[in-house]
Amino acid sequence: MRSARNDTIAAPATASGGALSVIRVSGPQALEITGKIFSPASAGKLTDSTGYTLHYGTIKDGLDIVDDVIVSVYRAPRSYTGEDMAEISCHGSSYITRQIIRLLTAAGARAAAAGEFTMRAYLNGKMDLSQAEAVAGIIASEDKASHRLAMNQMKGGYSGEFRDLRERLLELVSLLELELDFSEEDVEFADRSRLTGLMGKISVRITSLAASYELGNIIKEGVPVVIAGEPNAGKSTLLNALVREDRAMVSDIAGTTRDVIEQTHIIGGVRFRFSDTAGLRESADVLENMGMERAREAVSKAKIVLYIVSPGPEGEYDIAAASGQLRELPLSADTTVFLLLNKADTLAALPDTGQIGARFVKSLAYDGMNVDFAGTLKISAKTGEGIDSLRETLSSAVDTSAVFRGETVVTSSRHLEALMLSKDALDRAQNGIEAGLSADLLAEEIRDAIYHLASIAGQEITPSDVLQSIFSRFCIGK
Amino acid sequence: MRSARNDTIAAPATASGGALSVIRVSGPQALEITGKIFSPASAGKLTDSTGYTLHYGTIKDGLDIVDDVIVSVYRAPRSYTGEDMAEISCHGSSYITRQIIRLLTAAGARAAAAGEFTMRAYLNGKMDLSQAEAVAGIIASEDKASHRLAMNQMKGGYSGEFRDLRERLLELVSLLELELDFSEEDVEFADRSRLTGLMGKISVRITSLAASYELGNIIKEGVPVVIAGEPNAGKSTLLNALVREDRAMVSDIAGTTRDVIEQTHIIGGVRFRFSDTAGLRESADVLENMGMERAREAVSKAKIVLYIVSPGPEGEYDIAAASGQLRELPLSADTTVFLLLNKADTLAALPDTGQIGARFVKSLAYDGMNVDFAGTLKISAKTGEGIDSLRETLSSAVDTSAVFRGETVVTSSRHLEALMLSKDALDRAQNGIEAGLSADLLAEEIRDAIYHLASIAGQEITPSDVLQSIFSRFCIGK
Repeated sequence: MRSARNDTIAAPATASGGALSVIRVSGPQALEITGKIFSPASAGKLTDSTGYTLHYGTIKDGLDIVDDVIVSVYRAPRSYTGEDMAEISCHGSSYITRQIIRLLTAAGARAAAAGEFTMRAYLNGKMDLSQAEAVAGIIASEDKASHRLAMNQMKGGYSGEFRDLRERLLELVSLLELELDFSEEDVEFADRSRLTGLMGKISVRITSLAASYELGNIIKEGVPVVIAGEPNAGKSTLLNALVREDRAMVSDIAGTTRDVIEQTHIIGGVRFRFSDTAGLRESADVLENMGMERAREAVSKAKIVLYIVSPGPEGEYDIAAASGQLRELPLSADTTVFLLLNKADTLAALPDTGQIGARFVKSLAYDGMNVDFAGTLKISAKTGEGIDSLRETLSSAVDTSAVFRGETVVTSSRHLEALMLSKDALDRAQNGIEAGLSADLLAEEIRDAIYHLASIAGQEITPSDVLQSIFSRFCIGK
Repeated sequence: MRSARNDTIAAPATASGGALSVIRVSGPQALEITGKIFSPASAGKLTDSTGYTLHYGTIKDGLDIVDDVIVSVYRAPRSYTGEDMAEISCHGSSYITRQIIRLLTAAGARAAAAGEFTMRAYLNGKMDLSQAEAVAGIIASEDKASHRLAMNQMKGGYSGEFRDLRERLLELVSLLELELDFSEEDVEFADRSRLTGLMGKISVRITSLAASYELGNIIKEGVPVVIAGEPNAGKSTLLNALVREDRAMVSDIAGTTRDVIEQTHIIGGVRFRFSDTAGLRESADVLENMGMERAREAVSKAKIVLYIVSPGPEGEYDIAAASGQLRELPLSADTTVFLLLNKADTLAALPDTGQIGARFVKSLAYDGMNVDFAGTLKISAKTGEGIDSLRETLSSAVDTSAVFRGETVVTSSRHLEALMLSKDALDRAQNGIEAGLSADLLAEEIRDAIYHLASIAGQEITPSDVLQSIFSRFCIGK
């Protein structure tokens, strides 16, 4: 891995479709290679330039002008990657971007893999591994909560927590190793019950960090909310009202929505991923059944299900049918269900939500179904009545206060796995104490726990395939 | 308009979704405003910085870190707009970008309108109006031909052509004005037949420039190609084969494609806009008929129609049905039609394309339909057989050689309109000569022709609402 850094890499760092496009070049030949395709407007060569300077000029392909550009020059080690770097700012055309990448690779650069710039920053010691991973989180952040999480991780507060735990475990190991030095004398420097107490505390902390992953994950990925219900209940209209735009096609024809329509929307600083699904009913239509299958799949992954019912011709909500449909859905145990009474404004007598909700729960319980039912709301998807209060209800259904208190919240499944492995090793050590295990074997288990904690910040030697898999989740150009 | 430039504008210049995001700030307070929200890592203020330098530091919102950024500093007049400018390079998160724009506007900047940076560049004399318009063309260019067109326009070759025409007309005007000075003496400095000859030449040139708009427009917008045919003829499979990706949903069920599916694809340096449409048949289904209506609308705007037929159960192509369907389509006069015989590989005897094509044309002519029929091709959308040769056929159906010879090709409807108005004025002048119009009235018509030619490069006073409408077609941040 480290030996591969003798080459120079290049990639676009901006998305296509903007006014401006930036192409990054990093490595020992960054300025030499960029200089081959760049004619500066004023005298002087890129290779002679000092860092932190800008240069105006033209990129040419033979005699043809590709674009007028600005080149930013950075000198190792004062750059993002820690290497010599050039950033070419050109007009935001996909054609121009492709041509410049082509010319750079013809001049000796290699097209960068996803995350390769940040991997070099890590390998050159500009940041630790969990900080490097946070860069991907920062780029992906669309809302306040996920931004705050990723920023805490990038600024090192996150690694700090694991460093503390590691240091406390290291102390235990040194005590145990002291015993080994005096092993002839059969002394116990590390009082076994104190050891158990200390490891227990660390274990509890690791468990609570692992538990924070559930929150971290939904903040990072968005809270999955599925809108379900019978055909024509008003699901697509509700989606449009919730996300405040004309996302899903709406018509009076039952079965207008075939596939799952997803739209993210931020409420109270947290991103929700709303899914509108095909209406649930008996049908012989192949495409409609495909759609319902996809609806069921979406429900199985939902954190929140909004089950929407519209009144029948008699002005009655068919609660028995609703609970019957819900029983057919593959709800997971920690999914919260809300019942939404749509078109409440069209009824002569306003429905009693408390009574209907109670009937709904009773009807579900009748079949032995244990649903985390969180309430009944009256709405009108069409007029927007009750939508604001639904948004508030959704917002308070996800408790993000830990994030804004600056607590450590785990967002990465790699970190979660490391925590669980660390916890396993501590459990083995604690069982070992009870079984009267020798100090050297105890120390070995604790060292294993330390190893896994340290892997979070990449302080242990990380195999190159692990690094590849971490950085391949980045976008190109970062 | 000019007086509004006392303020400082800000906008994101990159599309969201990349590793990096760039926010532009331009105006007299650009560095002061950026300096209010930026804490540099090293000593020194932005307002004291020289142009063409980079500055590393942090954007803060109160105590919260929004992001680590790089600020590029430009000093008037050596910047894109000709004003003081700062460009903030941050992580490519939509949340961070929004926060920085919010902080900049709170610090005194105004959110820029679309194209406002380039409009300032024009108003500050950094480029003429047609060059400024070319910037939008360069950003939009996705292929070699449209890039070449826009680059020629931005580099001034385009304005040069109109400047030449204008100067030639100005000479005529001065000759006529000379006559006016000697009007008592009844001399004709400007020989009327020579005048007619010169104006005729210019008129011919203007007409040919106006004619180039058809090519310019399809290069800029992409060549619209519509795939039409009966349900299950293989339209979606053909689209996927042409654009070499899995764009349109494919199934054995007739009527799988409901809406028009568009996909652009570049062939031989030219961008084609392929549209897959709903299959044409008699149907009572409301949604299916909506789809067919949209298919017909797409056909009416097509430059090329690919009419695809698949063999029936007897292994025969139903050419009568195909021509019947085609007759129902609102083909425009300059639309070229190709007949594609799909699944040719599955037939025992290979079809004779010449014979089938002749029958097709005859069948169309039978109903008095005059179609620009360009040929019959055997393909297999499924196996890809014949697709390469279809791509070559499409590529040679659009003659772009004028672009690569560097000829002036008009791409803007505003320029086309100016050319037509200029031509009208010249026509009036030529008729005036025949009618023995006085020199001063002739000069006035020619000055009108000059005015319209000059408006292309914005050399005449351009009303601010015209400028607004030109630049509002730009993206934000340019």
